[in-house]
Amino acid sequence: MDLHGGNIYRLKREGKGELLDYSSNINPLGVPESFKRAIIENFDILEKYPDPDYVELRENIGRYNKVDIKNIIAGNGATEILFLYMKAMKPKKTLIISPSFAEYKRALDSVESEIIHYPLLEENNYNLDIESFLKEVPQCDLVVICNPNNPTGSFISLENIKKINDVLSEKGIKLFIDEAFIEFIRGWEDMTSVLLEDKNIFVMRALTKFFAVPGVRLGYGITYDEEIMKKMEKYKEPWSVNSFADIAGKIMLWDKEYIEATENWIEEEKKWFYEESCKIENIKTFKTNVNFILVKLLKKNSSVVRDEMIEKGVVVRDASNFMFLNEQYIRLAIKNRENNIKVLQALKEVMA
Amino acid sequence: MDLHGGNIYRLKREGKGELLDYSSNINPLGVPESFKRAIIENFDILEKYPDPDYVELRENIGRYNKVDIKNIIAGNGATEILFLYMKAMKPKKTLIISPSFAEYKRALDSVESEIIHYPLLEENNYNLDIESFLKEVPQCDLVVICNPNNPTGSFISLENIKKINDVLSEKGIKLFIDEAFIEFIRGWEDMTSVLLEDKNIFVMRALTKFFAVPGVRLGYGITYDEEIMKKMEKYKEPWSVNSFADIAGKIMLWDKEYIEATENWIEEEKKWFYEESCKIENIKTFKTNVNFILVKLLKKNSSVVRDEMIEKGVVVRDASNFMFLNEQYIRLAIKNRENNIKVLQALKEVMA
Repeated sequence: MDLHGGNIYRLKREGKGELLDYSSNINPLGVPESFKRAIIENFDILEKYPDPDYVELRENIGRYNKVDIKNIIAGNGATEILFLYMKAMKPKKTLIISPSFAEYKRALDSVESEIIHYPLLEENNYNLDIESFLKEVPQCDLVVICNPNNPTGSFISLENIKKINDVLSEKGIKLFIDEAFIEFIRGWEDMTSVLLEDKNIFVMRALTKFFAVPGVRLGYGITYDEEIMKKMEKYKEPWSVNSFADIAGKIMLWDKEYIEATENWIEEEKKWFYEESCKIENIKTFKTNVNFILVKLLKKNSSVVRDEMIEKGVVVRDASNFMFLNEQYIRLAIKNRENNIKVLQALKEVMA
Repeated sequence: MDLHGGNIYRLKREGKGELLDYSSNINPLGVPESFKRAIIENFDILEKYPDPDYVELRENIGRYNKVDIKNIIAGNGATEILFLYMKAMKPKKTLIISPSFAEYKRALDSVESEIIHYPLLEENNYNLDIESFLKEVPQCDLVVICNPNNPTGSFISLENIKKINDVLSEKGIKLFIDEAFIEFIRGWEDMTSVLLEDKNIFVMRALTKFFAVPGVRLGYGITYDEEIMKKMEKYKEPWSVNSFADIAGKIMLWDKEYIEATENWIEEEKKWFYEESCKIENIKTFKTNVNFILVKLLKKNSSVVRDEMIEKGVVVRDASNFMFLNEQYIRLAIKNRENNIKVLQALKEVMA
C-alpha cells in the first residue's frame, strides 16, 4: 500500500536501519505511562469481546468533549470513521480544501464521489481566504476541511468556521471537519467546531497524534445529525475497536500530567522550530499552529532532499504528491529539542 | 448492537455482577503469557503506524500454515475478512449450510446478496449429509460452510470438503470456509481445506478463539485466487489491524507450550463434558469436535433457561435465533474442569 507519510517499514526492509522518523506527526512524549499501566493491569479484558456498543468508551469521550454519548461514534482509528461517514453520506460531489490529508480522496473514491479542490494559496501562507471561498464555493454535497490543516499547519478560527457553515448550510452543503490535530493548540476546547452544536457539521478526531498511539487505532466522530449517526451505526462492522483502544480512551483522556506536558512542549517548540528554520538558507517555512511544518525548497527537489536526509538518518515527508504542492515541498514533524536540532542541522547541510 | 453470544457488558450494566461467561467460546487458558511479555517489551511500537502491508505478520501466518505470504490477507478480526470477502466477491445468491454463525448473514446483507439455507438435520446429529447435499445444491454464486460448525460442533473431513468443492467448482460456485475453530481439533494441520490449494476456496481464520484474544482483533484469510485477493486488498481500509494484533500474530503462533496445553485440555474436556452432559435429565447434547456444545432442552424454553442460569451466575447462549433451531436450543462453551462442573450442576438443577 502506498500511503501518507514515509513507510518506515519499507525503509527498514531495504536495510536503512534505525532512522529518526520526521515523516509521521506523533507526539514525541510517547505512549502515556498511565495507558501502559492500565494495559498491564487489564490483560484479561482481551479474553472478552469488546462491548459492541462501546458505552463506557463513548461516555468518556463524551465527557472529555462535553457532549452527550448519543452524539459520539467510536472507530478503528479515524480511518474507519472517515470511510463510514462517506458510506453513510454518499456525497455525489465533494469539495476538499487543499492541499490536505490524502485519505479523504481514498474514502471519497470508495463511494465514487466526484472530487473538486479549492486551493489554499502560498501568497496567503496557506491560510484560507474565507471571503473569496464563500463567494466562489460551487454547488456540491459536502465540503471537507482539515482543521488544523495537514500539511500546512494553518487553522481556521471558530468564528470563521461558523461563517462558512452558515453559508454552506443555506446551500444544503454538509461540512466535514477533521480535527485530528486540534489538541496541539492550547485552549482548543474553546476553538473546536463541536461547540457550534450544528447538525450540518460532522467533526472527526483521533487519539493517534496527540497521545502518540497510531498503533492503537482509536478515532471518533461527533455529530448532532441523528440521521447520519443512525446510518453510520448501521454500516459499522461489529467490534471494530479493539479492547486496548477501548481502555486507551478511558484512561488517556484524563491524564492531565501528560496533556499539560504536551501543551507546554508544543507551545515552546513550534515557535522555536519555526524561528530556527527561518535561519536556514534555500528554504522557506510557513508558520504552524501544530506539531509539523511545511517546508518549501528553493533548490533541489523533494525526492533528492528526501534521499539525502535518509542518508543523514532522517525520514522526511516528501510533500510533492499533495494537491497544489509540487517537488518544492517537504513536511517535517516537530519533536523534542534534541532531535529537532539534529534534523535542522541535517537539513541545513543538505540545502547548503 | 444485538450480536452473537451473550452481551456480557449489557448484563453488567443491568447490575448482574460477575458471571461465568459460557456464551462465548474462548480458550479458558486465557491470554498467552508470551503475548503479555511481548506487549510489555514493545510498548513503543504503538508510537508508529502499523506496517500498512503487514509483511512480517503475514510471513508468520504463512509459515504457520505452510502457505506463501502472497496468499494471506490479515484483518481486524475475522469480521473484517468476512465483510471484505463479500464486498470483493459480490455474490448475488449465497447458500449457507445452517444453523451457523450469524455474522455471515450480516456480511451478505451488506452486499445485498440473496441468502438461502441448507439444513443440517438433527437426525444426522447435525452432520452434513454430503451425498444429499451434492444432489440438491441449487445454482448460486457462493456456498458458506463453517468448519468446524458453530453452534453444532460438527466437522466435515478434508476428503468430503474436496468432494463438495469438486462439484461446486464444476458448477461455477465458490466455496467460503470459516475455520475459526479448527485448531481445537488435534492434528488440524492435516485436515484444513487450505491443503487443497484450490482457487475456488477461501479459508477464513481467527486467533480469537484458540488464543483467547477476542479483544485483540486479529483474523486472516487464505486464498489461491489472485483476483479476489487483489480486490480485497483494494477495498481494505489502511491500518485496520492494530500494532498489538500485529505482535500477537508474530508471537502466539509459535507458543508451542500454550498450543500443546490447549490441545491436551480440549481433547480431554470435550469428551468429559459430553459424557457428563448425557447424564443430565431433560436435555439432549450432540457430540462436538471443539470447545462448545449444542444442547437441546426437552422441557422449558431457552429464554427461561437462560434467565435461570443467569440467576445461578452463568451466561449461556440462547441458540433459538440460529436458523433451523428454536427455543429448544442453547449452546454452552467448554472451559476448565472446575467451572464446567459448576455449569453442569447449575444446568442439572435448572432442568430437574
